Amino acid sequence: MWAELLPIGRSSASGGYRRYAWTGADSECREWFKEQAEARGLVYEVDRNGNQWAWLGDTAAGDAVVTGSHLDSVPDGGAFDGPLGVVSSFAALDELRRRDAHFTKPLAIVNFGDEEGARFGLACVGSRLASGQLGIEQAHLLTDGDGVTLPRAMEAAGYDPDAIGPDPERLARIGAFVELHVEQGRALDLSGDRVGVASAIWPHGRWRFDFRGEANHAGTTRLVDRRDPMLSYAETVLAARREAELAGAVATFGKISVEPNGVNAIPSLVRGWLDSRAEDQATLDAVVGGIEKAAREYADAHDIALDVVRESFTPVVEFDHALRDELTRILGKDTDLKVPVLGTGAGHDAGILSGHIPTAMLFVRNPTGVSHSPAEFAAEDDCLAGGLALADVLEGLACT
Amino acid sequence: MWAELLPIGRSSASGGYRRYAWTGADSECREWFKEQAEARGLVYEVDRNGNQWAWLGDTAAGDAVVTGSHLDSVPDGGAFDGPLGVVSSFAALDELRRRDAHFTKPLAIVNFGDEEGARFGLACVGSRLASGQLGIEQAHLLTDGDGVTLPRAMEAAGYDPDAIGPDPERLARIGAFVELHVEQGRALDLSGDRVGVASAIWPHGRWRFDFRGEANHAGTTRLVDRRDPMLSYAETVLAARREAELAGAVATFGKISVEPNGVNAIPSLVRGWLDSRAEDQATLDAVVGGIEKAAREYADAHDIALDVVRESFTPVVEFDHALRDELTRILGKDTDLKVPVLGTGAGHDAGILSGHIPTAMLFVRNPTGVSHSPAEFAAEDDCLAGGLALADVLEGLACT
Repeated sequence: MWAELLPIGRSSASGGYRRYAWTGADSECREWFKEQAEARGLVYEVDRNGNQWAWLGDTAAGDAVVTGSHLDSVPDGGAFDGPLGVVSSFAALDELRRRDAHFTKPLAIVNFGDEEGARFGLACVGSRLASGQLGIEQAHLLTDGDGVTLPRAMEAAGYDPDAIGPDPERLARIGAFVELHVEQGRALDLSGDRVGVASAIWPHGRWRFDFRGEANHAGTTRLVDRRDPMLSYAETVLAARREAELAGAVATFGKISVEPNGVNAIPSLVRGWLDSRAEDQATLDAVVGGIEKAAREYADAHDIALDVVRESFTPVVEFDHALRDELTRILGKDTDLKVPVLGTGAGHDAGILSGHIPTAMLFVRNPTGVSHSPAEFAAEDDCLAGGLALADVLEGLACT
Repeated sequence: MWAELLPIGRSSASGGYRRYAWTGADSECREWFKEQAEARGLVYEVDRNGNQWAWLGDTAAGDAVVTGSHLDSVPDGGAFDGPLGVVSSFAALDELRRRDAHFTKPLAIVNFGDEEGARFGLACVGSRLASGQLGIEQAHLLTDGDGVTLPRAMEAAGYDPDAIGPDPERLARIGAFVELHVEQGRALDLSGDRVGVASAIWPHGRWRFDFRGEANHAGTTRLVDRRDPMLSYAETVLAARREAELAGAVATFGKISVEPNGVNAIPSLVRGWLDSRAEDQATLDAVVGGIEKAAREYADAHDIALDVVRESFTPVVEFDHALRDELTRILGKDTDLKVPVLGTGAGHDAGILSGHIPTAMLFVRNPTGVSHSPAEFAAEDDCLAGGLALADVLEGLACT
């Protein structure tokens, strides 16, 4: 099952995955999902927002237990972020059938569309649309780097863009959603555990810093006559690291756009995107406030105009405490082991849905912590342990 | 004449010019050149490398006096860099005819192709090819951002790419080349002069700094586990400014390329291009050496791999002293004014040709020093003074 998925959308140059929403590679992954569902005799369906579902039992009965994740990727992403959750869901179902488990509730496996937001710049589009956190009109305005809008992209992939929108009836039929995901940090590696349960997703946001100076000739303009926005940008990058270190948070400038971006031209505009996350809102506010204050001082010193725009923000997400405790009880019952409960800085469909239905996450150990990279890795034994843990959880939630 | 040229290739968004070699905007500029030549009864021809010539007198007589510049632009460049020299050449010829000047030598006006290198990354392609400083095979490998090679681009513009190559016979017919150009700094503004004569072009070069770290998730990777190349890049940008300030040189990071360039991804690669220039070779070596040393220290501290590649280098160009002195004599003879002689950090076709034929440059005052920008400006009075100075020079060199 895993082997069939591995080659899809993989760049031979980087070894990383380029499975962007509604592209050919994404369609191949979705075809794979459909085949897995049908091979197991599950009821396959695609909801109005292009999310794929595979049902065991009565789809309309309510109180369903749902598991799954996503199959799309960031640019040159790893093999595990997303697919491990979907593959483990099918593997867990196989394991429960092997155990002859008796299901008392409907079970569904889901593949949410466009989780990474690599193409249209907004993460978790499938779950945001379903939960109403992304409006139809806003969704229609999403545009990729080539100027293709989300509706046209969905249409090109064979879906009806006029159908997208909130799906409250579908969500109301779900009693619990559990997403398994490779850990994107080293907490489990440091604690020596294969599997953990999520406590919360840190509040996080994206801020765009536009430093505007004056384009000029790099060879002939005296240093004192320059208004070079690259200098203020560079100082702000270093300030972000310092502020994050002081607060025990994270802050990253990973994306930049420069105009005119010529070797012999002092830039007129340096646009840098800050991603920052912290354990709680107050800490995050302090970090971003500190970075912006430093950036303004640098910009003023070089006669640079600075605009800071918050492009997105997600408050802290506390996963359902009862469901979380239930998971730790199920996972600990045969082993007396304490299952670690850990926070994460990454957003997930589970985080989006947690405001609407009881939601939980399982993490599988990542020995290097590397994520969103071709080097992302999880050991086979740990993945198998994750699949069995998910089977235990589903059995505990959906079977007698 | 100027008015017809102004709208060609101008971006309505930026107000800057996008006249890249062998594009539609470039072709329109070249058509304008041909019309100007024909309207004055000059012999129009295009050489094997696509440079345009307009001849007065016997093209084969030898010891010709040539003036001109270029019509292409950097991305969002100004109206004056290049075109002012070509327009002034035609205007100077008109002035000499008004004066009933008697020509004893052939005169030519030239428009060199692809001076800015905006499309294929190498400046002064037309004059480099003619002088043999760019080999035919290397030229065939030049490729633009869309993967179009120089030969295919020339072909698409209606030229024969198989004809390109050294043109020693043509250069041998030239006794002196004078290029008029808007100044790209504020030296004339600071000295209060309308027109100056060039002494030398500073040695200059381009170095590519590749900082390679490890792509990772910006939300979940602890700061201590990161190998973020953006930090070393930022430190190096600031080091470059410090080194240049200490040495009285210039150093600029104006172009950057980041992989994967995602908001929530720590970069795997930050590639920054350094442009640096100084009055003499020893100073330039010290500046670039100091920047590279600092960059290596920063990179080592963050476990970042650093490669530094010198992509191009041009040694100091001293313009022909006899011709330079002749120009200052001609320009000073009626006014008793001392004409300022100044160095420049910018490369020009005149710099390329100076190794092969006696070459000189005239600069016209730039009140802000701004260049390679839509805000580039020269006052009409100063442009007229430049055209008259060029007429005086051509009369002194080519007439009795």
